Amino acid sequence: MLKINSEHIAQMEKYCRINLINSVAGYKSLNLLGTISPDGITNLSVVSSAFHLGSNPPLIGIVMRPEREHNDTLKNIKDTGHYTLNNVQSEWLQQAHQTSASYPSGVSEFDQCGFSKEYLPSFKAPFVRQSSIRIGLELRDVIGMELNGTTIVIGEVMHILTENEVIGDDGLVDHERAGTMAVTGLDAYYQPKFTERLAYAKPGITVSLKSEEVRLYP
Amino acid sequence: MLKINSEHIAQMEKYCRINLINSVAGYKSLNLLGTISPDGITNLSVVSSAFHLGSNPPLIGIVMRPEREHNDTLKNIKDTGHYTLNNVQSEWLQQAHQTSASYPSGVSEFDQCGFSKEYLPSFKAPFVRQSSIRIGLELRDVIGMELNGTTIVIGEVMHILTENEVIGDDGLVDHERAGTMAVTGLDAYYQPKFTERLAYAKPGITVSLKSEEVRLYP
Repeated sequence: MLKINSEHIAQMEKYCRINLINSVAGYKSLNLLGTISPDGITNLSVVSSAFHLGSNPPLIGIVMRPEREHNDTLKNIKDTGHYTLNNVQSEWLQQAHQTSASYPSGVSEFDQCGFSKEYLPSFKAPFVRQSSIRIGLELRDVIGMELNGTTIVIGEVMHILTENEVIGDDGLVDHERAGTMAVTGLDAYYQPKFTERLAYAKPGITVSLKSEEVRLYP
Repeated sequence: MLKINSEHIAQMEKYCRINLINSVAGYKSLNLLGTISPDGITNLSVVSSAFHLGSNPPLIGIVMRPEREHNDTLKNIKDTGHYTLNNVQSEWLQQAHQTSASYPSGVSEFDQCGFSKEYLPSFKAPFVRQSSIRIGLELRDVIGMELNGTTIVIGEVMHILTENEVIGDDGLVDHERAGTMAVTGLDAYYQPKFTERLAYAKPGITVSLKSEEVRLYP
């Protein structure tokens, strides 16, 4: 068995640690985050930190890193209050990945990477026209994390743009039909395949595994 | 095109809204969260909200819901400072799903659902022996969300238990080899298939898509 502890992690080469910690907890959602500055310059970047905070009100969180020299995205979200999350499909994965390149301020990744902007009335941020699921969010909370200087951004879902066949009768989004990809680490992309849906769990169902207790010593 | 706005979402039937908002942002990581109370009663539950907060220090966040009558898990984390995240594999997916049943306080989902407990010296929380990737975390921050009463729990990675072949030379975890599953919504399970890794993106790479601007009117 491989046992890695906090001392090993602290001593790891930087990119090895980034890859390990960015991938260890499992598959991550993959979206393009679209914003616009008050003077009309659009911005697009890949995010893999989106998490479900709650359904009523409908809230989604994302993590913004501190180390970017010119973090236009976070500034745009704070300035306009609007941003979009747009799913990534395999046909244009290369272009989506390319948005993570460090373009100069004032240059839009929409134009550089070939994505079309789509706008709704009364909603400032651009949606990605190529995406089959597009979410428009309004800023609700900004939490500065003292632990590491990151920022957790919480938004309320104001718009969902998709096709009828992508959403099931019970509300579940069919990401396999939508062609949505997943990611681990910084750059390893995956296409998930549907396995099954399981019924609401109740006590009393017999399971076949036997429970044991084991103590590991160094 | 299907356009769902915030009014539609507010008027949806409750479970339809839960399914939609829980699934709209893409695939989610799937883990079993293991804890223990100060008097030794273990607890195990499925979590799909784990997100990467940062690599140095190595931090992972999870969201805890407020509506559970007896939230033993959050209490155990606060009381002991330790908890584990353990990946879920298809061979025992049913058992993992079964941990979400509402068992009475004092009954351990480890025993009810047939999972073996594994302990490290000087680390209180139980790992799931069946999991091929097991993460031991120490509590670093608890953030109460005024927006909806949920709690964001931030932990530092203290231990990673796995097999040598699961971690690549550059630190990336191979979740396909580890048999890790993903989830959307509450109960739709997926087995991701590796597509590709892409090189670090730099400006200047030509892309084939053409950027356009479109305004959608109601």
